[in-house]
Amino acid sequence: MPLIQVDLERELFDSSKDELSKAIHDAQIEVLGAPEDDLFQVYRPHQPGEFVFSPSFGGVDRRQLVLIRITMVHMHPVAIKQRLYQVMTDKLAAVGVRPHDVLICIVENGFEDWFAGVPMKGE
Amino acid sequence: MPLIQVDLERELFDSSKDELSKAIHDAQIEVLGAPEDDLFQVYRPHQPGEFVFSPSFGGVDRRQLVLIRITMVHMHPVAIKQRLYQVMTDKLAAVGVRPHDVLICIVENGFEDWFAGVPMKGE
Amino acid sequence: MPLIQVDLERELFDSSKDELSKAIHDAQIEVLGAPEDDLFQVYRPHQPGEFVFSPSFGGVDRRQLVLIRITMVHMHPVAIKQRLYQVMTDKLAAVGVRPHDVLICIVENGFEDWFAGVPMKGE
Repeated sequence: MPLIQVDLERELFDSSKDELSKAIHDAQIEVLGAPEDDLFQVYRPHQPGEFVFSPSFGGVDRRQLVLIRITMVHMHPVAIKQRLYQVMTDKLAAVGVRPHDVLICIVENGFEDWFAGVPMKGE
Repeated sequence: MPLIQVDLERELFDSSKDELSKAIHDAQIEVLGAPEDDLFQVYRPHQPGEFVFSPSFGGVDRRQLVLIRITMVHMHPVAIKQRLYQVMTDKLAAVGVRPHDVLICIVENGFEDWFAGVPMKGE
Repeated sequence: MPLIQVDLERELFDSSKDELSKAIHDAQIEVLGAPEDDLFQVYRPHQPGEFVFSPSFGGVDRRQLVLIRITMVHMHPVAIKQRLYQVMTDKLAAVGVRPHDVLICIVENGFEDWFAGVPMKGE
């Protein structure tokens, strides 16, 4: 159960939601080893004025904000998270989303913190 | 201060918000022993295309997604969380929401992480 | 990278977004010592019916809900968080938002949990 919450501009959502969804999900499968059917994504399309952000923080050239929040069980080492960022932004770039525009934020919890139709258990 | 954030389909929100709200809040009072006036819920109605989910993950028959995120102070043992899922989904079922469609995700913090009109203190 | 997510009534967003944004950001700079260009805010305007809340929890006189969620790296002591609430609600009051209407909720993670155009490193 990584839960994926994506805040993005309405225009990007309307033009590219399916491609974004697949890019994010494929990265999750490839890097986290998550089962293919472990898929929970919520998209929140926004008007541009609903984002306020620095165009340059981190030394990048940021033109819009594509916010990807990942809530998942604490079980992956730092190196895996770094690889997840790399693979996910590579796959997003391949569908036209510039890595500089992506903000990924991970929040972690435990197996006991999930109910997905049934209570979840550690694997 | 459990903070309850619910993402759900616009149609379900329009038809059943009051009943959902009461079911979730009653479960919180009954299982967590929260005071009756400890009530903070935000609803985000969505178009169906804004959810992407597996219809079968966890071995269930999922037809829509009713995402209930609970942010609360770390103080409840696992057994209480399990009972919260049971009671909450029972009460939701009583107002027409199938347990298989519910995704509950708990994220925890500390007393010092809340300001609710005034700073919060441990009890 | 404090990530700031604000849920608020549409009317307040339309009338005062720029002032709210500046109040929140100025508090973050002043109290957390965050760089000026560390600015990531997402606003979600709501219809009033999308909030359900107690008007009195905490012994206050709450008339609407301005929910400010802060996701940030775990690095600040409790006293700094308390000061953040004070300074932020002071600055919000100066632009017309009553402190009693504000709900602030902090969730913490680590440096390794962020990608902001590039992977983030501890300072």
